Amino acid sequence: MAIITLTTDFGLKDHFVGAIKGTIYSELKDAKIVDISHSISPFNIQECAYILKNSYYAFPKGSIHIVGVDAEPTVENPHIAVYVDGHYFIAANNGVVSLITAEINPEKVFEIKLPDVLHGAFPVLDVFVKVACHLARGGKLEVVGKPFDDLKILKEFSPRVSNNGNTLTGSVIYIDNYGNVITNIQKGLFEAYRKGRKFEINARNKRLTEIYDSYSDIINFNLDKSRRKGPGDLLALFNSSDYIELAIYKSNLQTVGGASTLLGLDYRDTIIINFE
Amino acid sequence: MAIITLTTDFGLKDHFVGAIKGTIYSELKDAKIVDISHSISPFNIQECAYILKNSYYAFPKGSIHIVGVDAEPTVENPHIAVYVDGHYFIAANNGVVSLITAEINPEKVFEIKLPDVLHGAFPVLDVFVKVACHLARGGKLEVVGKPFDDLKILKEFSPRVSNNGNTLTGSVIYIDNYGNVITNIQKGLFEAYRKGRKFEINARNKRLTEIYDSYSDIINFNLDKSRRKGPGDLLALFNSSDYIELAIYKSNLQTVGGASTLLGLDYRDTIIINFE
Amino acid sequence: MAIITLTTDFGLKDHFVGAIKGTIYSELKDAKIVDISHSISPFNIQECAYILKNSYYAFPKGSIHIVGVDAEPTVENPHIAVYVDGHYFIAANNGVVSLITAEINPEKVFEIKLPDVLHGAFPVLDVFVKVACHLARGGKLEVVGKPFDDLKILKEFSPRVSNNGNTLTGSVIYIDNYGNVITNIQKGLFEAYRKGRKFEINARNKRLTEIYDSYSDIINFNLDKSRRKGPGDLLALFNSSDYIELAIYKSNLQTVGGASTLLGLDYRDTIIINFE
Repeated sequence: MAIITLTTDFGLKDHFVGAIKGTIYSELKDAKIVDISHSISPFNIQECAYILKNSYYAFPKGSIHIVGVDAEPTVENPHIAVYVDGHYFIAANNGVVSLITAEINPEKVFEIKLPDVLHGAFPVLDVFVKVACHLARGGKLEVVGKPFDDLKILKEFSPRVSNNGNTLTGSVIYIDNYGNVITNIQKGLFEAYRKGRKFEINARNKRLTEIYDSYSDIINFNLDKSRRKGPGDLLALFNSSDYIELAIYKSNLQTVGGASTLLGLDYRDTIIINFE
Repeated sequence: MAIITLTTDFGLKDHFVGAIKGTIYSELKDAKIVDISHSISPFNIQECAYILKNSYYAFPKGSIHIVGVDAEPTVENPHIAVYVDGHYFIAANNGVVSLITAEINPEKVFEIKLPDVLHGAFPVLDVFVKVACHLARGGKLEVVGKPFDDLKILKEFSPRVSNNGNTLTGSVIYIDNYGNVITNIQKGLFEAYRKGRKFEINARNKRLTEIYDSYSDIINFNLDKSRRKGPGDLLALFNSSDYIELAIYKSNLQTVGGASTLLGLDYRDTIIINFE
Repeated sequence: MAIITLTTDFGLKDHFVGAIKGTIYSELKDAKIVDISHSISPFNIQECAYILKNSYYAFPKGSIHIVGVDAEPTVENPHIAVYVDGHYFIAANNGVVSLITAEINPEKVFEIKLPDVLHGAFPVLDVFVKVACHLARGGKLEVVGKPFDDLKILKEFSPRVSNNGNTLTGSVIYIDNYGNVITNIQKGLFEAYRKGRKFEINARNKRLTEIYDSYSDIINFNLDKSRRKGPGDLLALFNSSDYIELAIYKSNLQTVGGASTLLGLDYRDTIIINFE
């Protein structure tokens, strides 16, 4: 049976997630439900998209992803079910699906039209769960509604190239559990403009001239321990999603703090890379 | 196999939940365990009851609900297992079961008396898990102890009707992940006294004269965007559990705040509805 | 199929846990994954060890425990897979496994050497998940690398015995969800030095002369309610892991506070027990 994943801003205290799981198991005894995150900032579809974009593809093809953020349908944002990259996404047409699968053309987009559905305050339960169970049972997408050709497209902030290709200006798209700062500059773009040159990353008043592949790569194990870099030191790396990330080695938000607080960088703030 | 759900105040960091799940799987290889919430405020059985009341019924009949809040047995609050509304609840006799299933008469109530049980500081593991596994295996409730006729009854604050049926005074019973304020006034009671009349909800210094069925119903999509209501606006609605809820449309606790902070309403505070 | 447990400092918001679960299910359709905790303080292997030590043994023999805290491999801390006490642990050689299973000799220790592994910023996904799936499928530990005889040993602070066996000095090793303070003095050690004598526990400016077996044991139910001890009162008990714990009966961190704040005791602070 296909996996159903849940990504919501419901938090982990309220009854919402429990009610959803109970309803799924009541419809589908052998359902496989996986929580991706319930801690999205309320109504923040950018954050939701970042988290789904970096996890959905790890699931088996055919998985069904319930996107429970900003999920109320309106005349402008009806409910949709999208088949793209071998995965199903069930969401409101608020742009979140276009952010999750930005570079991939959806194969099928349907507006959800279920008979006898409650118009109420909990559409993830009343609508999305029904569609997800239908799909998990092997039901066809075509049955949930009618073809839809008005998928809302949102664009992420893209890095800006200027100064004859000698400068990249990116922005902060996510701050993770360690306080590390993820920028929207991906490795491919960076290397395309770098062309082997030296470079300098400017983040507030800090400068960095190397980008590592892992956090501990900043440590030179040939040096005596007292002379090595270590916990608390700032570095840039290509993270596991190939974004340039600014990190504090072994950051601890309760003691030394994370890169975000130390650099004073928040969502949407800019960082600048100059090539030599 | 019947589902075992967990609702506790153990939090998500400590080893308690892991130890419980490990023990269940050790007893019952194919157990199906579902977390409802581990973030109940410590020892708050009212909060625990609100969350279970709004989620237990979504699970298949025969599900087994471990209630791990205020679970230490005492001579006054022994451990009980209750069969009510087709579901099993395992709890201490502290009143929580009566709050969860207030309007329904329990079919069976047993005091739990297991042989050779540790008297220790972790009764959810030492006692509740054993009973839950026994029931999930298809074992009889009758075997876990002896019939018990002293189920502790707690009553929720009820709304008060006054002024010849022209005034309802309710109170706040829950504040959710969005900061929305849930009152104890249910739709049925409200409509019974309203009798089609106009009304005014008074919550601190705010007045509301409509109750919607969903959050986005406050938006008039016929108006130009600049003239519509939207994020940050206060509304009342019947929520998915049919309680009157005061909400901020697309509240964000980190920026605009939620209804609770904006209205200055906390648990047990009152709101007043006057009918015309 | 063997259970795979996850214990990390990834938190519950980011995509990390979702990506790991998706990858496991993609490799192993019928995997059984159990979250122990994702809320370990970043890089805190002592805390991680405390939580695993008190939960791993509850799982069935043969379970596979992914230890995703401080998991980057370095020349000094390579990745290891350890078979000890009937359980598998997959971790970096940072000492965490020795803290989890302090008193037990590992049966097998292997350095993980997988072919074609990405050297990147997400080794829990790139390496640990592969090893865990291999073991869950019934694969041999011997295949994941080569025997390793340099398992890093860390020692917990041990209680100190002084004054001719009349004084025990312990320290705080954990503060739980209720603010209760867990010390490193275990029941066995305490009783060995106590030899039936009276004693006094000194924690800051508080003195305690009894150690209970459960929280509610401080209440004398023979007394009238008004004269009983109750919520807010301090007690010592042997907790479910047999450590001496200082607790506030029905503590509530939002109102009366927990033992930790009331006593002013933090990690590593000392408590002293004098025998008469």
